[in-house]
Amino acid sequence: MSHIKDYIEANKQRFLDELFELLRFPSVSADSKYKSDVLKTADYIAEKLKVAGADNVEVCPTAGNPIVYGEKIIDPTKPTVLVYGHYDVQPPEPLELWHTPPFEPTVRDGKIFARGACDDKGQMYMHIKAFEVMQQTSGLPCNIKFMIEGEEEVGSENLDVFVKANREKLAADVILISDTAMISLETPSLETGLRGLSYLEVEVVGPNRDLHSGVYGGAVANPATILAKMIASLHDENNHITIPGFYDDVIELSAEEREALNQAPFNEDEYKKDLGVEELWGEKGYTSIERTGIRPTLEVNGIWGGYIGEGAKTVLPSKASAKISMRLVPNQQSAVITSLFQKHFESLAPKYVKVKVTPHHGGEPAVTPTDSTAYKAAEKAIEEAFGKAPIPCRGGGSIPIVALFEKELGLKTVLMGFGLDSDNLHSPNEKYDIANYFKGIETIPLFHKYYAELSK
Amino acid sequence: MSHIKDYIEANKQRFLDELFELLRFPSVSADSKYKSDVLKTADYIAEKLKVAGADNVEVCPTAGNPIVYGEKIIDPTKPTVLVYGHYDVQPPEPLELWHTPPFEPTVRDGKIFARGACDDKGQMYMHIKAFEVMQQTSGLPCNIKFMIEGEEEVGSENLDVFVKANREKLAADVILISDTAMISLETPSLETGLRGLSYLEVEVVGPNRDLHSGVYGGAVANPATILAKMIASLHDENNHITIPGFYDDVIELSAEEREALNQAPFNEDEYKKDLGVEELWGEKGYTSIERTGIRPTLEVNGIWGGYIGEGAKTVLPSKASAKISMRLVPNQQSAVITSLFQKHFESLAPKYVKVKVTPHHGGEPAVTPTDSTAYKAAEKAIEEAFGKAPIPCRGGGSIPIVALFEKELGLKTVLMGFGLDSDNLHSPNEKYDIANYFKGIETIPLFHKYYAELSK
Repeated sequence: MSHIKDYIEANKQRFLDELFELLRFPSVSADSKYKSDVLKTADYIAEKLKVAGADNVEVCPTAGNPIVYGEKIIDPTKPTVLVYGHYDVQPPEPLELWHTPPFEPTVRDGKIFARGACDDKGQMYMHIKAFEVMQQTSGLPCNIKFMIEGEEEVGSENLDVFVKANREKLAADVILISDTAMISLETPSLETGLRGLSYLEVEVVGPNRDLHSGVYGGAVANPATILAKMIASLHDENNHITIPGFYDDVIELSAEEREALNQAPFNEDEYKKDLGVEELWGEKGYTSIERTGIRPTLEVNGIWGGYIGEGAKTVLPSKASAKISMRLVPNQQSAVITSLFQKHFESLAPKYVKVKVTPHHGGEPAVTPTDSTAYKAAEKAIEEAFGKAPIPCRGGGSIPIVALFEKELGLKTVLMGFGLDSDNLHSPNEKYDIANYFKGIETIPLFHKYYAELSK
Repeated sequence: MSHIKDYIEANKQRFLDELFELLRFPSVSADSKYKSDVLKTADYIAEKLKVAGADNVEVCPTAGNPIVYGEKIIDPTKPTVLVYGHYDVQPPEPLELWHTPPFEPTVRDGKIFARGACDDKGQMYMHIKAFEVMQQTSGLPCNIKFMIEGEEEVGSENLDVFVKANREKLAADVILISDTAMISLETPSLETGLRGLSYLEVEVVGPNRDLHSGVYGGAVANPATILAKMIASLHDENNHITIPGFYDDVIELSAEEREALNQAPFNEDEYKKDLGVEELWGEKGYTSIERTGIRPTLEVNGIWGGYIGEGAKTVLPSKASAKISMRLVPNQQSAVITSLFQKHFESLAPKYVKVKVTPHHGGEPAVTPTDSTAYKAAEKAIEEAFGKAPIPCRGGGSIPIVALFEKELGLKTVLMGFGLDSDNLHSPNEKYDIANYFKGIETIPLFHKYYAELSK
């Protein structure tokens, strides 16, 4: 397929320029002030799909952000791959930690720095460019459908309705997603599972107004202190989560499965050095790979209360809040865990305070089979492009769509991600290596080729 | 002294208008963006002192905000009262909870709502108006000096240097301060002690950047969770403070002293209702009056970390912070407690994180004698103005100057406050009752009269 490589080489700068244009839209789905940018991003994707040669391109309205659809049916008897991606991004905050502006993509050391560079604009756009490449060179070996949504970072709340209402339009044989990481270009890997998510916001309310901490301090419960105590109690001394029933549905892996998982290269010293920590943390009895792959977790994503400005204010705050999320593993259900958390957290509240727990969004964990035609096609494609077969790995993140697709469309997913764990997803200075972007564009046509061949 | 009352009555509106003008300056000392407003406030005070008849009025520069000085020496053989007050105010945040703008004084139900209405602009300005009243009617019965500072809310850091450098200028027989509360106009009281203060900021740092909570969650310590655990451990199950040595210097009151203290009227049901809490909280073995008066406390004044914007962000934050302050009781020393806290908090930090503790400011606790000439003069003044003798009470707040004055100038203080605990000091909707403002202006000349008489 050297003509594919030639075409990529010849269009390299344009492929980058188009991605940069896409990255300049601040399409933050969590914050309603970016709504008009989100809509412009959807239009841009639709336009690029059309130009690349997709038919029936639509910006489909939902109750939230629109979903961009497009397709190319070359032959109804051939297999169909449904490519999923998302054009929304995480909020860029804290802004002061970015070395260059989050929505002005900047190249340093062969890496594109921008919010969404990897998650998921960079990875999603590879598919549109790979589609163009195939159209302009070898032609498509199978049918391809695109469904690019704008609410992945806020729980894909309206995708559910869209999928249910468009079963026929979305009919396919497999889902292909590039929204995960591989170990490295030298050690390619394929994710075979994703964690689910329960995300909640909690508020602890004490007195009906902020109080003078001298006049009232000592006689009235401080909601920030109470919240700290409640959060502190959510992990025991072995860092197990203390919510009753939390682990009930977790399927323990066999010793063999765990051993296989721990074969993936993991250098603890490098990991610590990269993160700047002296010691790792985690649930007793599990390795770091297991802690991020096959074990459920509970994290405080944000906490706030009282005076957080410059200087000192001697206030006993009226309330304190936190955003808390849990990553779930196969067989745990987001709605069940959300409800267990809610019940437990409310039960922790002493009479001094009132507690409000508001679920944000959730997603189900998923496992992708390694014995499917599609997985084998991905394996072959990566082996050909990288010169090395990929290692199967469990991913720690969540893409709720994977479980949703299986349930609603009966389809399995292939997670062919080209990101790196060090891409600073959801963090300041998110980046995507230019080499990975082009390696992805090169690998995707191989996937479609082998998937069509192996499906015969 | 009916001519005094007549003069007040005749100038009522102007006395209010002038205070309103003073309240319109956003003289927030904690936030450097208000610096120019702070300076304008000092100038306004100086101008008003001059107009009221004070001599040698000066806006004295310091390393921070200036101190306004003025005096009227009628006869060097007569006693001298040094009036202390402050023109700086607490930050107005959270702004959304104010019913009317914090720096646009608004009258509702006979109360002036504005930041600083009570603490301390309203109470401090009573002294300037009482001075005018005496000048225009009976004349001064003793010498009066004014020292009005602009950094009380941030720890009076530069007052120390000023006092040491101006011992002669500040020479007096007693300090008079109105910056505390009384029980009510129907049950007047006089504070006989104040708590000291240690104020610190703590920062817990985990990984060197915000991380994706899915990719890293479970394997890396979350600084928000660790901070919560550290804060949670600062009180034991009886709400005693767990810092080693914290109570070592506390002098326990005798059973008789405690009984006397608990004679002050306190209606628990009304207190709870006013605060909107179902149950009170506090150190086991002490009443609410004791908890806020004679016991040291530890409060979280602010806490923050991670994503605190709208919606959901699945981030494992790089760091989390808190502002923590302790109120101290007689014989505890601010510097000692600050150092004990710092040592203990640092020792709590597990190896997963780094902890930084930054002391903000402190102040010493103080007890004022009830057998002094000045205290008796205050008692008589209040009895005459209110028709009832004041109850002696221990105040929970801190005015570091009280201990400083005793140490540097050898002077005792009389805390003749006219505020109410319900004045929302340091909170949204701070207020000061117009009735208390004028009652103060009426009582202060009586204090000077009786102090001069009793000093003979």
